[in-house]
Amino acid sequence: MQRVKYQQRDNPASEGRLTELFRVLTGSTVASGVVLGIGDDCAIVRPRGSPDDLLLTSDLLIENVHFRLSTHRPEDIGWKALARGLSDIASMGGQPRWCLLSLAVKTGCGERWIDAFYRGFLELARRERTALVGGDLARADKIVCDIMVCGAAPRGKALRRDGAHTGDVIYVSGLLGGSALGLSKGATRTARRRHLRPEPRLSLGRFLRQRATAAMDLSDGLSLDLHRLALASGLAAEITAPPQFPGATRDQALNGGEDYELLFTAPLSRRLPAEFEGVPITRIGMMRKGRAGAVTLDGAPLDPLGYDHFRNICC
Amino acid sequence: MQRVKYQQRDNPASEGRLTELFRVLTGSTVASGVVLGIGDDCAIVRPRGSPDDLLLTSDLLIENVHFRLSTHRPEDIGWKALARGLSDIASMGGQPRWCLLSLAVKTGCGERWIDAFYRGFLELARRERTALVGGDLARADKIVCDIMVCGAAPRGKALRRDGAHTGDVIYVSGLLGGSALGLSKGATRTARRRHLRPEPRLSLGRFLRQRATAAMDLSDGLSLDLHRLALASGLAAEITAPPQFPGATRDQALNGGEDYELLFTAPLSRRLPAEFEGVPITRIGMMRKGRAGAVTLDGAPLDPLGYDHFRNICC
Repeated sequence: MQRVKYQQRDNPASEGRLTELFRVLTGSTVASGVVLGIGDDCAIVRPRGSPDDLLLTSDLLIENVHFRLSTHRPEDIGWKALARGLSDIASMGGQPRWCLLSLAVKTGCGERWIDAFYRGFLELARRERTALVGGDLARADKIVCDIMVCGAAPRGKALRRDGAHTGDVIYVSGLLGGSALGLSKGATRTARRRHLRPEPRLSLGRFLRQRATAAMDLSDGLSLDLHRLALASGLAAEITAPPQFPGATRDQALNGGEDYELLFTAPLSRRLPAEFEGVPITRIGMMRKGRAGAVTLDGAPLDPLGYDHFRNICC
Repeated sequence: MQRVKYQQRDNPASEGRLTELFRVLTGSTVASGVVLGIGDDCAIVRPRGSPDDLLLTSDLLIENVHFRLSTHRPEDIGWKALARGLSDIASMGGQPRWCLLSLAVKTGCGERWIDAFYRGFLELARRERTALVGGDLARADKIVCDIMVCGAAPRGKALRRDGAHTGDVIYVSGLLGGSALGLSKGATRTARRRHLRPEPRLSLGRFLRQRATAAMDLSDGLSLDLHRLALASGLAAEITAPPQFPGATRDQALNGGEDYELLFTAPLSRRLPAEFEGVPITRIGMMRKGRAGAVTLDGAPLDPLGYDHFRNICC
């Protein structure tokens, strides 16, 4: 998902409003087999008799909102559509199993466009052993992709964003700001690729399942996503500057979004490697008692400035 | 889904093209735990160790394609978004369990619109005991809803559209053409309601699980949907005129679409009631040996004229 579920796609001004909507939503359907509903990167549901929990997530990718045809090739759009869903599965330590793709295309996008879209999509699907089992096709004025991924994790073992404890160390994987940099004019090829072909951290997520206390993926920017993790865990967070992608500004690393790295917490006593499969693991701060969701950078308040679709709708 | 999956959202001219795409799609992902992939109303997947199979479906509902703000109230759009997904679960004899909703709204749709949308959505979700466990929110120029429903059926028992045998009787539930009539000027209130608030035939679908040989839901019109069922089963179909909704024309009943009734087949020897929970069950014909997918009405060929999104895209 846009990792940001209904109640949390907010800025402080809209938080109350969406929290109320969230309450109504979750309280009003019978929750048979629901371990975790709206509010995390994935929902967790429990099929009868299975040793696995299932993780469910969906993510929209919309023309002129998330991409432009002038800058994004169809094979990159296909890749990214799936990568966004897989990143949610990664953040909860799951193994992706099956996916559905709903795709609305416009008349100008003919066979070649559609073929190229699926080529990019299936390149990633094959690599991550995720079977495309269905979906829907329609036409529309703008291209809209919605990916639904169903993953699995051993029963009760999925990572969540609400599990951090006071004193836990805060980590991020990778280098931040590359995706935002990749969108800017004159971006390096590596930064551009970072934006167009994000890498869901699936094996890292599974590695963290027995080691992290809380996790989520960085889709909307560290400042907003860490605010959400801290809010869900009922704690405050203190950080120093995160590791920056070569050429990225500090602002891009803090607020840029779409890095699809993992943000997670682990007890101080837990030893974690400095890198995992070539991806750096960097300690950036610590969870503290304090106002839930408050984040400080080098001691000063850090506003949640990441991308919020609903800033202009719900408040 | 638009019940019509990738390879079957077609007209005869585009069939070859989409069948090829379908082959590439299904052949290219590893199918771990996949019982039935792209091509039916739902995919069927098998969670480890569960006595249930899971049914997965997704359906788009797009402004100015599937509805207009000038004629559809937000509560009706919310209801219909879910009803389309539930109807897919019904057609395979499943019990809906969980759903995700991806919703893109435009700035003009404020809190009141969103609230009303969810009111309609949740009215049906509550009634059918389907838990809304997540989704995505974004803004866009046009409203786009994509519903994903996950249902359950006892292992190996889900109904499919490819199970009809020669000599099986063809049935439809309900009266057809009401939804198309409901869209026309001067439509009666009951016809209009039929269009705005379709009723997924969930209990009928479960009743048919041990009785029907093949089933699907009528979303794109009897002529096109029966063509698909016959094609999937490798048989031809002979029918007489289906039961018409009061006031609907024969053309609306044959080609109108969006009735969300069930189309199914059962052996001649199987006794079925004339109605089920107040919904008529009508025998309309028989499956025959012949060209796969060929349908005749009173002995004359019946062209698949139902709604096909891809008539103008893929051919």
